[in-house]
Amino acid sequence: MKFFIDKEKLSYAIQNVQRAITTRSPLPILTGILFSCSGGRLNLSATDMEMSINCSVPADVIVPGALVIPARYIAEFSKKLPDVPIEFETIGGGNLATIRYGQSEFNINGYNAGDFPSFQVPEGEFSFALKAEEFKNTVRKVTYALSTDEARPVFTGVLLEIEGDQATMVATDTFRLAMKKFKVPASTPEIINVNVPGKTLNETVRVMGSSDTVRVTLSKNHIMFETQDTVITSRLISGRFPSYRQVIPQSFTCTLSASIREMLDSADRASLLAGEKSSLIVFQTRSEGVVISVRSENGWIREDIEACTEGENFDILFNVRYLSDALKACDGEDITMKLTGTYTPALLTSPGDDDYLSIIVPARTSKE
Amino acid sequence: MKFFIDKEKLSYAIQNVQRAITTRSPLPILTGILFSCSGGRLNLSATDMEMSINCSVPADVIVPGALVIPARYIAEFSKKLPDVPIEFETIGGGNLATIRYGQSEFNINGYNAGDFPSFQVPEGEFSFALKAEEFKNTVRKVTYALSTDEARPVFTGVLLEIEGDQATMVATDTFRLAMKKFKVPASTPEIINVNVPGKTLNETVRVMGSSDTVRVTLSKNHIMFETQDTVITSRLISGRFPSYRQVIPQSFTCTLSASIREMLDSADRASLLAGEKSSLIVFQTRSEGVVISVRSENGWIREDIEACTEGENFDILFNVRYLSDALKACDGEDITMKLTGTYTPALLTSPGDDDYLSIIVPARTSKE
Repeated sequence: MKFFIDKEKLSYAIQNVQRAITTRSPLPILTGILFSCSGGRLNLSATDMEMSINCSVPADVIVPGALVIPARYIAEFSKKLPDVPIEFETIGGGNLATIRYGQSEFNINGYNAGDFPSFQVPEGEFSFALKAEEFKNTVRKVTYALSTDEARPVFTGVLLEIEGDQATMVATDTFRLAMKKFKVPASTPEIINVNVPGKTLNETVRVMGSSDTVRVTLSKNHIMFETQDTVITSRLISGRFPSYRQVIPQSFTCTLSASIREMLDSADRASLLAGEKSSLIVFQTRSEGVVISVRSENGWIREDIEACTEGENFDILFNVRYLSDALKACDGEDITMKLTGTYTPALLTSPGDDDYLSIIVPARTSKE
Repeated sequence: MKFFIDKEKLSYAIQNVQRAITTRSPLPILTGILFSCSGGRLNLSATDMEMSINCSVPADVIVPGALVIPARYIAEFSKKLPDVPIEFETIGGGNLATIRYGQSEFNINGYNAGDFPSFQVPEGEFSFALKAEEFKNTVRKVTYALSTDEARPVFTGVLLEIEGDQATMVATDTFRLAMKKFKVPASTPEIINVNVPGKTLNETVRVMGSSDTVRVTLSKNHIMFETQDTVITSRLISGRFPSYRQVIPQSFTCTLSASIREMLDSADRASLLAGEKSSLIVFQTRSEGVVISVRSENGWIREDIEACTEGENFDILFNVRYLSDALKACDGEDITMKLTGTYTPALLTSPGDDDYLSIIVPARTSKE
């Protein structure tokens, strides 16, 4: 293997693929990045066996070949390189990479490329392209509600449901739920219902860079996202995603509308006194507005928020983080909250974004 | 106590004094900030009993008074306040502070101001003013060489020596040493020789803000730094600072000159392969330049650096962090290194800054 490459391109490709690597991998070779070059391109691949990221950049290839290079060294090293042409060379069939830059050189022991696991590229069964901005926005609006609890993997994924040209993404950790609908420029004869790892979606957003579009390809057990130069392939999460439709409340006894910014700032201040574990605040709807309050052994806070309220008044206990996350995910200036009672889920929407909703389940105090 | 204040002024003053507080203080009142207001000013004070920071900002004082407010809450809270006039009030002689902003309010339990320790304001025995930029630059150039080992407090301080109008700051952790000379616009009849805690110097630089000058006042056991609105008072470190003069090598058998940027970049790359504990690199002077190299079980690196060398050639083992720190502290484009041998200290200076030097003691391998 021998090629020349720009520092910027090398560093870009390494940063794109690197996030697929788990440092606590049981297989040492999986802590490495597969470098392979041929036909004027350098291809980098990394995988944790659940997700793989592949990035292709132009290079001046002299001798095609492949080698796995430890990510820990090459990632840091590529950022520190000078702005001169960088030469990679592997002598014979050996696993030592020599990297030359100016008069200096770095030699690093790698792994045989033949031992790097090949990850299954799913045969596309259904495929469509989305505008990059729309994809990013949709992912941002739902992934905050994901669970990080690896013991319940089904909640660490985002449900992607497609019926005709209507798609829906849903995430929930059972304490809150976020749902965003969007159109796909293709139509599927049967209903698609898959659970995509949240990590895969977040990494796809991260590597999208200046790509205008992202192509999504679904197969039975995999999903693939393709941008300009990067391909992310991931297993889908197995196990049934809960039927979210019945969780969405349909009738309400109180509706209020307030400024997102104002409520977010009030919640933020109130969180200072809220306990560290449960972070509960009292949310009170009143005819003249909303009051958020917290009382602790160190003091108390009372935040008066201007709001238009209609219907009955309630006192509700919320986890302040759940309220803040939901408010942050909303576009526009105002939030509409619909409530039914002290112990029933609250529905949050924002005027002008009919395709989005989120739900927060109120907390119960230990006394109840 | 009752006063009105701008959010920005309040937040600024809290951030200035807050760093004097150690969260692990045995006295709960020392985790608080003393608020006292009178005559159109709000004064904030915080101390860890070694160092105290005092900051004064304008406020609309209605009822003079004082109260200690827990720093943990008020610091975070002040950043989150809206841009409206902020009202502080303490009812009667109670220890509860009520903070009002718009329609909302925050109530926080404080401590009696009378219980806050008063810190000794040193009677000035010798005082002089320095330009803020010169002071910052001097502190930056020496404090990197400080020890963080609390078991040997003498090395956690910077020696300040003044003889006539000639001042010198010296810091050393016994593995490296940095020395900067500067003029003081005053003259002392006797030699001053004090050990100033590194933390005090760094905090003074931090709070200097837009101040043009800093006034330094020395007394027997204390030092005081005054900027526009902030006063830092600190105990001096007792115990004899080692006589640094005899450590500075005077004769050399090899002199070299190289680009600081180039050597820094090379050292930075080489550090990737250097061990995490000792981080040793081999520094070789050759007639055609300098070679920095590291060999580890994962590979090896060889950095060729252009340099003008004169005299004998050596191979020296350096801790790469010591070399990098010393190079970063130098102004200008080039570094001059003067060497005597493999095991003797190296002297670093930069042309155009005759008032500054640093010394690095070479490492010895475990075999020696």
